[in-house]
Amino acid sequence: MCEANAYLISENEKILVMEAVDTVEPEEGGLKLVNIFGEQKFVKAHIHSLFLVDHNIYLKSETK
Amino acid sequence: MCEANAYLISENEKILVMEAVDTVEPEEGGLKLVNIFGEQKFVKAHIHSLFLVDHNIYLKSETK
Repeated sequence: MCEANAYLISENEKILVMEAVDTVEPEEGGLKLVNIFGEQKFVKAHIHSLFLVDHNIYLKSETK
Repeated sequence: MCEANAYLISENEKILVMEAVDTVEPEEGGLKLVNIFGEQKFVKAHIHSLFLVDHNIYLKSETK
């Protein structure tokens, strides 16, 4: 399977938001994450960067 | 391996930008894509959505 772990990153933090993420889609000023178990999570952030071979997705908060 | 294909999407188009993408990182107002073969590509876009189990990454142009 090709799921990844989604982390919310800020200046000096990296918080695990969801494991085994399958889809990430924009929704109402944020992102809807769905993992391979069908669990959903809404995060007020955008997709910052991807490291797929390492199974990592980095999200960044919308706050400036 | 957990690479994915990156597509640039617009209103009614879906253009394959790069296959077997490993990393996507922001760079100078766009994105730097690197695939598992070490090939690099710069795209003036942001990451729109992810469908990892299907191996698809959708990018959207920065133009409004």
